[in-house]
Amino acid sequence: MEAGDRNIRISKEKMKDEFSRILLNRGFTEENAEKCAEIFTLNSLEGVYSHGVNRFSRFVSYIAEGLIIADAVPTLTHRAGSIEQWNGNLGPGPLNATFSTDRATRLARENGIGLVALANTNHWMRGGTYGWQAARKGYVFIGWTNTCPNMPAWGARDSRLGNNPFVIAVPYRDEAIVLDFAMSQFSYGKMETFKSEGKTLPYPGGFNNRNELTDRPDEILESWRALPMGYWKGAGLSLLLDILATILSAGRSTSQIGTCNTESGISQVFIAIELENLQNFPSIERSIDQIINDILNSEPAGETSRIRYPGENVIRVRNENLRDGIPVNREIWDNIVAL
Amino acid sequence: MEAGDRNIRISKEKMKDEFSRILLNRGFTEENAEKCAEIFTLNSLEGVYSHGVNRFSRFVSYIAEGLIIADAVPTLTHRAGSIEQWNGNLGPGPLNATFSTDRATRLARENGIGLVALANTNHWMRGGTYGWQAARKGYVFIGWTNTCPNMPAWGARDSRLGNNPFVIAVPYRDEAIVLDFAMSQFSYGKMETFKSEGKTLPYPGGFNNRNELTDRPDEILESWRALPMGYWKGAGLSLLLDILATILSAGRSTSQIGTCNTESGISQVFIAIELENLQNFPSIERSIDQIINDILNSEPAGETSRIRYPGENVIRVRNENLRDGIPVNREIWDNIVAL
Repeated sequence: MEAGDRNIRISKEKMKDEFSRILLNRGFTEENAEKCAEIFTLNSLEGVYSHGVNRFSRFVSYIAEGLIIADAVPTLTHRAGSIEQWNGNLGPGPLNATFSTDRATRLARENGIGLVALANTNHWMRGGTYGWQAARKGYVFIGWTNTCPNMPAWGARDSRLGNNPFVIAVPYRDEAIVLDFAMSQFSYGKMETFKSEGKTLPYPGGFNNRNELTDRPDEILESWRALPMGYWKGAGLSLLLDILATILSAGRSTSQIGTCNTESGISQVFIAIELENLQNFPSIERSIDQIINDILNSEPAGETSRIRYPGENVIRVRNENLRDGIPVNREIWDNIVAL
Repeated sequence: MEAGDRNIRISKEKMKDEFSRILLNRGFTEENAEKCAEIFTLNSLEGVYSHGVNRFSRFVSYIAEGLIIADAVPTLTHRAGSIEQWNGNLGPGPLNATFSTDRATRLARENGIGLVALANTNHWMRGGTYGWQAARKGYVFIGWTNTCPNMPAWGARDSRLGNNPFVIAVPYRDEAIVLDFAMSQFSYGKMETFKSEGKTLPYPGGFNNRNELTDRPDEILESWRALPMGYWKGAGLSLLLDILATILSAGRSTSQIGTCNTESGISQVFIAIELENLQNFPSIERSIDQIINDILNSEPAGETSRIRYPGENVIRVRNENLRDGIPVNREIWDNIVAL
């Protein structure tokens, strides 16, 4: 979402208070309403409006429909060394995920590396949130979620793979480098936006009904055949991430989640790695600096080319929105205030 | 490489004996010559000729040039819980990698999950080898390597990222599901083959000198701008894999490796996860079956579409080559025999 005529700017404090008020009225404890409001606000503050303010009303409606259990908390199912298996009990996805990230970092502190697998949880909103959370505490983070089926296997017409967002994060100065991407090249939401603006996608993003690769969003929205990133490679990665999330958590696979209308009861994995006890810990920041500087000093491909590292833009948008307020479509905000 | 007129078929025993003989004459111990010959033979048997028999002469020349130290063995630098940092001492890449995979599974057996980071090693040939190794012993495997710079950052003209192959493997029946892919959409070797056959790539695989996405291999071989899989997503993944390999191993980054003419002294990560002690271990095979069957039952996109899971084809080729012998270009084989 770009700031435009129909947008207003809301301060992060005001947004968080509003979210918190609504969640308190929906069965959240004070502490959990605060935590969950914090995550939705942070996602918005950092520019991921689609999984922040623009998604909040839907999140609330999922609570009303019983897909998300407002007061459910995760329970430990099993521990095996530095692996823990948890049941999310269909609680709020962001709360389950932030809890699991924290558990993974505790396991890593004990033993260098820790893994938490979480079954029966719900949409975690922005995956990057948990990468930032772990990395700003000094940990490497590798995590992913499965989803409902929304992408065809390579060579297939119907959607049986999820777009299974995958996150890798590394501490960097007082911030982090955070890679956060879904396995489909473009989300259907993004393709809807391009279509409504009458634009083609910047690169091919799916197959049309004639089985041809295309950059026309209208054709892909008709065929419902989103392109896996890297063609067969992203399709394979999606499959393996689903298998791992399912077997490590003892949870449901993409095919068991079944449909996307009412996605609930998904599976996630959270891995944290402790850096402080490595022999080269004192030189790690310098090593990362050296790599990042080398990349940023690349020769640009064209006059308008911008070379960035993953997460760089988040910091810029966060600062802008801290200063000016978070841009929100007026109608979306009015609907939230009326909840 | 396809079997053709200029190919002969060599049994796996004969190929392994030949490799073993040559390595014994190059300073390998009997045990290590055997192990290394086994890996080069297995890679060929399983159809990855480019990192098996077709690469063997170059491997031997790297020993002669001192880039690979025939009798070097890895040494433990540091242990922190279930993380071990090893120095590969510029030893043979396949031996260092198979050793590290084995160490990672031992750490996982002790504590559920284990990570080995390996500095100063050499090209591991086929990454999938180590995925198969761990998964056939019952472990989940996640591993990757950095490489010399051979792919531009997103928006860049010059190559400062590696294609950093990434492997995920899961045990499956008595075999495994093994995903093994590089971050570039097509390797330069593959593009050379398409060019020499006068063919275009099946999908866009790079940018030409006019900064346009193209499926013409000649134009990409001229611009030297291979496409990251999934555009900016694969470029980001390549960067994060390089950062992690570098900081976890205390080894060299892609930019420190510097050039591709004589790639040596690279960094790798090996993560193993124990499944046996999970509470749902007895039902894991059934879970994977359910996922795989669902995918294989997809509706094909076209009449010639084939839907496969990663690693499925390896088993087919292995059986074919076990029966008929491994196809080798006669000239390549003659050169090996003369070593």
